[in-house]
Amino acid sequence: MDIQSYMVTVGKQARDASRLVAKADTATKNRALTLTAQAIERDVERLLAANALDLNAARAKKLDAPLIDRLTLTAKSIADMADGLRQIADLPDPIGAISELKVQPSGIKVGRMRVPLGVIAIIYESRPNVTADAAGLCLKAGNACILRGGSEALHSNQAIAACVHAGLKAAGLPETAVQIIETTDRAAVGELLRMNDYVDIVVPRGGKSLIERVMQESRIPMIKHLDGVCHVYIDDKADIDKAVRIADNAKTQRLGTCNTMETLLVARGIADRVLPRLAQIYRDKGIELRGDDATRKLVPGIKAATEEDWYTEYLAPILAVRVVDGIEQAMDHIARYGSQHTDAIVTEDATRASRFLREVDSSSVIVNASTRFADGYEYGLGAEIGISTDKLHARGPVGLEGLTSLKWVVYGEGQVRT
Amino acid sequence: MDIQSYMVTVGKQARDASRLVAKADTATKNRALTLTAQAIERDVERLLAANALDLNAARAKKLDAPLIDRLTLTAKSIADMADGLRQIADLPDPIGAISELKVQPSGIKVGRMRVPLGVIAIIYESRPNVTADAAGLCLKAGNACILRGGSEALHSNQAIAACVHAGLKAAGLPETAVQIIETTDRAAVGELLRMNDYVDIVVPRGGKSLIERVMQESRIPMIKHLDGVCHVYIDDKADIDKAVRIADNAKTQRLGTCNTMETLLVARGIADRVLPRLAQIYRDKGIELRGDDATRKLVPGIKAATEEDWYTEYLAPILAVRVVDGIEQAMDHIARYGSQHTDAIVTEDATRASRFLREVDSSSVIVNASTRFADGYEYGLGAEIGISTDKLHARGPVGLEGLTSLKWVVYGEGQVRT
Repeated sequence: MDIQSYMVTVGKQARDASRLVAKADTATKNRALTLTAQAIERDVERLLAANALDLNAARAKKLDAPLIDRLTLTAKSIADMADGLRQIADLPDPIGAISELKVQPSGIKVGRMRVPLGVIAIIYESRPNVTADAAGLCLKAGNACILRGGSEALHSNQAIAACVHAGLKAAGLPETAVQIIETTDRAAVGELLRMNDYVDIVVPRGGKSLIERVMQESRIPMIKHLDGVCHVYIDDKADIDKAVRIADNAKTQRLGTCNTMETLLVARGIADRVLPRLAQIYRDKGIELRGDDATRKLVPGIKAATEEDWYTEYLAPILAVRVVDGIEQAMDHIARYGSQHTDAIVTEDATRASRFLREVDSSSVIVNASTRFADGYEYGLGAEIGISTDKLHARGPVGLEGLTSLKWVVYGEGQVRT
Repeated sequence: MDIQSYMVTVGKQARDASRLVAKADTATKNRALTLTAQAIERDVERLLAANALDLNAARAKKLDAPLIDRLTLTAKSIADMADGLRQIADLPDPIGAISELKVQPSGIKVGRMRVPLGVIAIIYESRPNVTADAAGLCLKAGNACILRGGSEALHSNQAIAACVHAGLKAAGLPETAVQIIETTDRAAVGELLRMNDYVDIVVPRGGKSLIERVMQESRIPMIKHLDGVCHVYIDDKADIDKAVRIADNAKTQRLGTCNTMETLLVARGIADRVLPRLAQIYRDKGIELRGDDATRKLVPGIKAATEEDWYTEYLAPILAVRVVDGIEQAMDHIARYGSQHTDAIVTEDATRASRFLREVDSSSVIVNASTRFADGYEYGLGAEIGISTDKLHARGPVGLEGLTSLKWVVYGEGQVRT
């Protein structure tokens, strides 16, 4: 197979399909989503059989247990995929809305229309359900997409794509609106990242090594998420019960997610009342603490945190803890060591809450709630293609709107410029 | 001079200054803008003297006349610079506004706050007035900026920067919020484009070769404008007087701007009534026409347009003309040859106007008005840092809002995720 000419064909087909999807009406797009959901429900056995091929190969290759876990489809996860598509069908269609229409001094009326981005490439790892989710979101936002899943999931992804194609076809939309890359050759990704004529945006979803590779190679703008070094700062004006509940939840509710707290900052004035209580909770839940000197005085027996700990996204039962003088030092710490993902303050002081919200430069800034809320569903987006730590375009959880853009529309009555 | 360490110093200073500018209140930022305007008015003689140094060097190097024209400051252009800064001071401050605040099922309130981008690098060519404009816009939007003007304008830019620094200092803001690169070594640009730790966004402003160099080298997201291959399509349902007026203005009001029409598309059913009239106007104004066969039958004696003409941004008294069957073929032509910048339709048919607005994938889409309106001032933005032909973030004319971003803000009362 000539990878380059294969990828150019995929790119051209996507570009052509994108023009048809962009002008499809809401009912047609929703019909494609609903019919895809039905195809998935009808094809449960076929999907499980395809997934079994991938799972057998993965076990034969002795891939690790978490990866096999992510790769596994079940009757339940297949039903969830179909439900997810129906939920996307239920979301309002963002495309075509015109906002901010105003008459200008020249007499022209100027506004902005929400439009699709065009062609979106999504590069992801082992979870096959991303194939259905991503295809559904791109379609609803009027985009064509090119999906490159993990090589270990190819059979599963092909089986899911067959359901998507059935849905598209039955709704009268081109099957090429959703294409999966049919080769596991890694050179295909390199080609994809250079096709800026055919691809408008790349969304890499996966571990840091994947994201870094895409950042190195891509000539195409990205919606990406790099690090989640998230902080909770417990202010000396905090309600202690709230502080304990939030710091507990932010670390322990799930360890491996990007919005999990990795460093806890505690104001000196309240440290002796919250840190011993929290240390007990963390000890009971098997979380290793690494602290600065002041923390280690209050919580004896824990390891000293090194400079490197402050930069680290553990994604593991480890938490760095530092006692700070107050909000100023907390914000300095976050600016220096954080990853601009999600940071929270616990305080009853409204002025400090406002300062934290305004001055901490992260994609989500939270007062008196857990960092774990930084999520498209919790934010009411109805869906999520990923979380962005970039500042351009979409920041934080990216839903349908993040897969669209605004263009200017002008209505005149023969005006010319003088 | 060690360019790399110099640039790292500039970058770090910008990052530190950006945190202070981000939290400056509106009155402080406006005071800096007004005081800079006053400093510019007070320093007219000094600015003209610095500019004379640049002009003498440019003439000695026999740089071409248009460049020397762009380089020249006059008492009038200096007064305009000061007025521009006062206009920026009069614009509403976009920073800090919270929108879309909604209670979610968990009880948290989620909204979005408009925030600065951080550090903006602007790379531009010979016009020294960009130094004041760009500094003013970046400052008003709460950003620090690093300005790299043309080497031929260094003395002028330094003199303008001295006024900006006086304004910043008198308002209590760090002078490092606006830095110009003090070396003309081109390696400095290469360093700048790799400083993704210190620079959040790059805005290249200039000719195509500058933009292409920045695209090749930059590891930082950009707001950029590449080509302006703009079209006017005259539909067979057009009002002929409007069509003639618009097609005349779009080409001839200014030849060298990115929103100037480069290709005229005319529906077959109306071509014999508009093309001869337009050809007469263009002939009188010295515009060379290049047409397809159908055009050449109606306008004898003009050159045949080649495939390459359809792709060309002339920025010159040349216009490509094609007769098309109707709106469908016009939109196909625009999709194939256009640059997604600005395209207009002239028609009295509301359905066709809507289709054109929705389906033409350009940053500005216009009904019954000249393409020349695609401009930040004409659109009511109050100012313009540039025009973007990218799809992410800002499309089309970019004003203050394009120098900002939205972050998520969450208000809780102790909520945790379950």
